[in-house]
Amino acid sequence: MAEKVVINEVGLRDGLQIQPKLVTTEGKLELCQALIDSGVRSFEATSFVHPKAVPQMADADALFPRLPKTGGVAYSALVLNDKGYERAMAAGVKSVAIALASTETMNQKNIRMSLDQATTTFAGLMTRAKREGIEARAYISTAMACPYEGKVPVKVVMDLADKMVKAGADKLAIADTIGASSPAQCEEVFRAVVKEWGAARIAAHFHDTRAMGLTLAWVALQEGVREFDSSIGGLGGCPFAPGASGNLATEDLVFMLNDSGFDTGVDVAKLRRAVGVAERLTGQRLGGRITAWWLSQERKAAAKAAQAAE
Amino acid sequence: MAEKVVINEVGLRDGLQIQPKLVTTEGKLELCQALIDSGVRSFEATSFVHPKAVPQMADADALFPRLPKTGGVAYSALVLNDKGYERAMAAGVKSVAIALASTETMNQKNIRMSLDQATTTFAGLMTRAKREGIEARAYISTAMACPYEGKVPVKVVMDLADKMVKAGADKLAIADTIGASSPAQCEEVFRAVVKEWGAARIAAHFHDTRAMGLTLAWVALQEGVREFDSSIGGLGGCPFAPGASGNLATEDLVFMLNDSGFDTGVDVAKLRRAVGVAERLTGQRLGGRITAWWLSQERKAAAKAAQAAE
Repeated sequence: MAEKVVINEVGLRDGLQIQPKLVTTEGKLELCQALIDSGVRSFEATSFVHPKAVPQMADADALFPRLPKTGGVAYSALVLNDKGYERAMAAGVKSVAIALASTETMNQKNIRMSLDQATTTFAGLMTRAKREGIEARAYISTAMACPYEGKVPVKVVMDLADKMVKAGADKLAIADTIGASSPAQCEEVFRAVVKEWGAARIAAHFHDTRAMGLTLAWVALQEGVREFDSSIGGLGGCPFAPGASGNLATEDLVFMLNDSGFDTGVDVAKLRRAVGVAERLTGQRLGGRITAWWLSQERKAAAKAAQAAE
Repeated sequence: MAEKVVINEVGLRDGLQIQPKLVTTEGKLELCQALIDSGVRSFEATSFVHPKAVPQMADADALFPRLPKTGGVAYSALVLNDKGYERAMAAGVKSVAIALASTETMNQKNIRMSLDQATTTFAGLMTRAKREGIEARAYISTAMACPYEGKVPVKVVMDLADKMVKAGADKLAIADTIGASSPAQCEEVFRAVVKEWGAARIAAHFHDTRAMGLTLAWVALQEGVREFDSSIGGLGGCPFAPGASGNLATEDLVFMLNDSGFDTGVDVAKLRRAVGVAERLTGQRLGGRITAWWLSQERKAAAKAAQAAE
């Protein structure tokens, strides 16, 4: 029996949030459906933040209740405060995520809170979710490096994660938000968090900024992690983290995992169509690092078909 | 103390051999010097094969004696038969490599020998080199998959490698010639060969055809391998192995290893110039997967400098 790995698609939120072209609610639903058709069963669907801060997420309240209710599909949503949490509850959210950046400067730039304020606020949200029977997901973001303060010590990540777990977090997602981790640092961080809280509680979130995305995912996998964020076509980045372009592409991650005998439940060939939908919606050229390989295979198949037809 | 990893640059041979534009001996020497200036100390420099089969290597006899004799730089050359071996000796080669493909069809297509003939011929060359005090390097090529016969069982690789070691091979280089390996298969193969012959005898050769190059290198590194082939700018492929485009780029490999605290002795920033030389010589656009990151960093530095100058 192949081991299962959860692919948590974040294109709808982390992927879209800095796209200059506004994507409609209908467009998001279409993209979500294309991903479901490929076998994706877990999504970070949106964020309940101020519409002025992130216009692309302004339709969160309208979008969430309309997301496809296909059997077994799970959706989470990002919240930053009680107001966002309450909007999420009103929209029917059953899993809330918070994102606690690892440094003072990053929290200031990203959410205009000090690290202390952010820690207290997010701990409160985790506790509230737990109490109310809602899944509580804590991201520790810029966990390997901060664009303003540089490399982050493992101890800092452990301390922040510990506070979130004590507050009630069911899941700890460790995020290399700016794609700055080396495989060696990644191994150190994931080994530490898995040792402390067990692999089942850990998820991983990588960016491919420096071409290390797939290798980092493999490293975390070796440490026992079986849940990964990724974004269709590599869509994404963080508006307040310079250099955070390029989420790890879902098609790259699924290709590597399927090819290595893991059961992601996702059909990588079908993701081609989802990439196309994302390209049309955003007006951007997208595609992970396996795109060139896909294209060469398609050219070969077309040439073969043409030859057979002669 | 950082652990040392040997970067064996194969751009001059594996990289150039299928380039349509003939590169002059002077050009090759310039590229070699640029790589030496970056810190590279190990090269597969050329192959002593029939000039009609691989015109790009027709200058092997003239090139080899002219290669820079900088302290500590080591050069190997590929040979296929006694005639090539003798040419190599006349040119001053101290390390010969053979490449034994893992399947019947690949040997037929690549060197017009049966698998048996190739095994016997190459075993003979390894024995001769050993007897004559020449380093004997045995590549097992298409070790993970053959473009004609598909996935290759580990047992096949082990049997061929065993024959080469028994014949006298000092080093076993396991080559995923068409970039078809998954990380899981790579782990299986390298674990087996390292267990049998020890990590010090093993080298790894990867192609990035399906974007797995860096991850495969990381996997082999975890199995203890400390010597890797790579090609500047990702230059290369094999003329007789369909789909074998894209050697693992030296700059990608060095970037990952240096960043993870290994001592390659290579300055990754200086490799930029070597990529430029390779581009000029081949008339091709080259560059590994970290190129986009390099460019973004250079743009940032330029903007900062412009601001400071105002």
